Amino acid sequence: MKIPPVKGTRDFYPEQMRLRNWIIDGWKNASIRNGFLEYDGPIFEYLKMYQVKSGDEIVEQLFSFEDRGQRSLAIRPEITPTLARMVNQQINSLPRPIKWFSVPRVCRAERPQKGRLREFFQWNIDIIGVDELIADAEVIFCSIDYMRQVGLSSDDVVAKISSRKMLAAILDLIGVAPQELTGVYTTMDKRAKLSDEAFEELLAKQLPDKQKQTEIIKLMAVSSIGEIEDIFELNEAAQAAVDELKELFRLLDMMGVSDFYSFDISIVRGLAYYTGVVFEVHDKLGELRAVCGGGRYDNLLKDFGGPSVSATGMGMGDCVLEILLENKGLLDSAREPLGVDYYIAALDKELVEASFEIAAKLRAKGLSAEFAYKPIKMKKLMKQASTLGAMHCVILGQEFIESKELVVKNMDSKEQENMSLDALLAQVR
Amino acid sequence: MKIPPVKGTRDFYPEQMRLRNWIIDGWKNASIRNGFLEYDGPIFEYLKMYQVKSGDEIVEQLFSFEDRGQRSLAIRPEITPTLARMVNQQINSLPRPIKWFSVPRVCRAERPQKGRLREFFQWNIDIIGVDELIADAEVIFCSIDYMRQVGLSSDDVVAKISSRKMLAAILDLIGVAPQELTGVYTTMDKRAKLSDEAFEELLAKQLPDKQKQTEIIKLMAVSSIGEIEDIFELNEAAQAAVDELKELFRLLDMMGVSDFYSFDISIVRGLAYYTGVVFEVHDKLGELRAVCGGGRYDNLLKDFGGPSVSATGMGMGDCVLEILLENKGLLDSAREPLGVDYYIAALDKELVEASFEIAAKLRAKGLSAEFAYKPIKMKKLMKQASTLGAMHCVILGQEFIESKELVVKNMDSKEQENMSLDALLAQVR
Repeated sequence: MKIPPVKGTRDFYPEQMRLRNWIIDGWKNASIRNGFLEYDGPIFEYLKMYQVKSGDEIVEQLFSFEDRGQRSLAIRPEITPTLARMVNQQINSLPRPIKWFSVPRVCRAERPQKGRLREFFQWNIDIIGVDELIADAEVIFCSIDYMRQVGLSSDDVVAKISSRKMLAAILDLIGVAPQELTGVYTTMDKRAKLSDEAFEELLAKQLPDKQKQTEIIKLMAVSSIGEIEDIFELNEAAQAAVDELKELFRLLDMMGVSDFYSFDISIVRGLAYYTGVVFEVHDKLGELRAVCGGGRYDNLLKDFGGPSVSATGMGMGDCVLEILLENKGLLDSAREPLGVDYYIAALDKELVEASFEIAAKLRAKGLSAEFAYKPIKMKKLMKQASTLGAMHCVILGQEFIESKELVVKNMDSKEQENMSLDALLAQVR
Repeated sequence: MKIPPVKGTRDFYPEQMRLRNWIIDGWKNASIRNGFLEYDGPIFEYLKMYQVKSGDEIVEQLFSFEDRGQRSLAIRPEITPTLARMVNQQINSLPRPIKWFSVPRVCRAERPQKGRLREFFQWNIDIIGVDELIADAEVIFCSIDYMRQVGLSSDDVVAKISSRKMLAAILDLIGVAPQELTGVYTTMDKRAKLSDEAFEELLAKQLPDKQKQTEIIKLMAVSSIGEIEDIFELNEAAQAAVDELKELFRLLDMMGVSDFYSFDISIVRGLAYYTGVVFEVHDKLGELRAVCGGGRYDNLLKDFGGPSVSATGMGMGDCVLEILLENKGLLDSAREPLGVDYYIAALDKELVEASFEIAAKLRAKGLSAEFAYKPIKMKKLMKQASTLGAMHCVILGQEFIESKELVVKNMDSKEQENMSLDALLAQVR
């Protein structure tokens, strides 16, 4: 009975697994370096967890099921609702600020396509309980810090930044009603992917008023914050939001990442819960979907039955990132075998057992050791040792039969030495 | 809206996450040291994957669901069927022997109880394509190697070993028909948990023949292989199976783990696919369920539509292991905070921004650095630094206002030094 894998999922054979570990370890290192602590939740939650605030796109893409107690559950499509639940549960005992990261496996019932699978890994970092803008700056800094660490430069990627608060204030100024906001945000979010005509047509469906359409088209054409101040007569709320964004940029400059970001009015973000700064990291060639995205979401904990506590965070999936790193030739080291300290092989059938014993003794000393189950010829032995990335070879041959001596070869220097097993074991720590 | 977590799942707050990582990293280290390569599969597969060979208990405990294309899927309750599928898919190109490990998250719709949850992590190691007994010995060695590594001694745990091949040969000798085998195995598997009376009653239900019952009761009472040879008139197949087990013990002795194992006739294993050596590691006090279990399963690849390739392996869950390690007081180091290289704090409000900048510069150099978002008093600063497990404190105070000098304090030696930011940055790599 031959059963295929499910479409849109991945099998991680050792080579792919090394790559996945390399990406995830990089995320973990960047998180720890930036002062975040790791957390995780269950792979499934109550279905209704994802119906609170995740937005229609995610709700439509849930893998949901009932358990034997007829409870409606769903595999997590993202971890932010779990984060909100966990923080709310211990809100009074958790030391603040809460700076947490996670690398959840998440599943979405999408149609598989380039950079989008039905199962992927998503790096999440969040700062909870810090109202100050420095937290937003730190989240953006941390994602750039990771990019730099894996070798991506400001020629390769850019963090495009805007503000939901600023958009809301200006849309209010233009006369867009609160109940029209969601529709207008969704349209604005699609701007970068649409032609001028298609955008204007879509916008007209959301906002019948010609004058308002014109204003929004004008807004979407700005390329700097200064332009916004020039074009619009800002009220207090709008000016405060604009000033906040300028302040964010000042903090990012101070943190040494001025090359890596730009203001971009088209960044809105699909998710329903953002309330302030929003950003996405894109490849500079604009060939791929966003590598990561995030922003401030000050109401989420409250939406999940907790107190009003501010929060800001970011999510980065592994699929688009891997394509980008591959395109830039940055995955070579990720694919190298991990290597073993010792590869032990016998040239003669009667000596094979001794190689088991030597391997077991080296392992018991904490060293990695692999052995050949069968006798092996010298040429194949050397080939196998280099396939395994072995640092040393231990060869059991004529010397072992005659005088119990092993031949220990350093695979780097190619030097070799005869020694007893005791001498070898004494030599390693 | 307050939504609880699903019963039988775990939230991993940073402290629990550290513990989980400590356990999983230990598994990974032991695997790599023993020459295994990591793989993983999807969190869900076609439902029928688990209806082939997993045994009734697992099939009853599946979380299954339909995707939008009406395909019947299930969250993985174990990874062995995925392993069989993956190996079969690339059977002709994979270098042999296949020595792979994985640490999958798996889910079973069980009633949650001590040591059994509906979601857990399970270390799996498997050797595929080696007929020789050394592969079975290596799997058992590797699980003992892990036990030793985390500080468990032969006073704490024991690997109880038996052989399905030997059981089958002796049951055949006794006259148990092939179609009666599964029922008898299931009964024998429960032996250790039952009183003599309960066991005999259950056995009588499976095997009406009084004479056969008596023989099985005699078999289940043996405490050494030698006893089996004394009690039964072994035929060729039974003697070969007994000799094989003796040979396994000789190999384990050679590998230096003679203190850690014993022959135990009551080890049968619930899973349907075992064909040879079977084993379980138990706590010596016998208070807990098995810590791990495994054995040889030579037909599984064939059952999944592949060629006839032999295999042997082991699985260890995190729940029972964690209870055991906790009971033995071996989790203290697992709970320690990871620590940061630098904790940067300002004593004065105007200096807070400079601490962001310093943190960003240290992080860009690859060091872990955390900072205080708000000005902090010296006493609280020292307390926070030790909570974070910081190696150094960088304090911005009067010296910084007067002469741009930082106070850098080594938290171990308690020595402190004044220096410029440039001097600090020059000092670290």
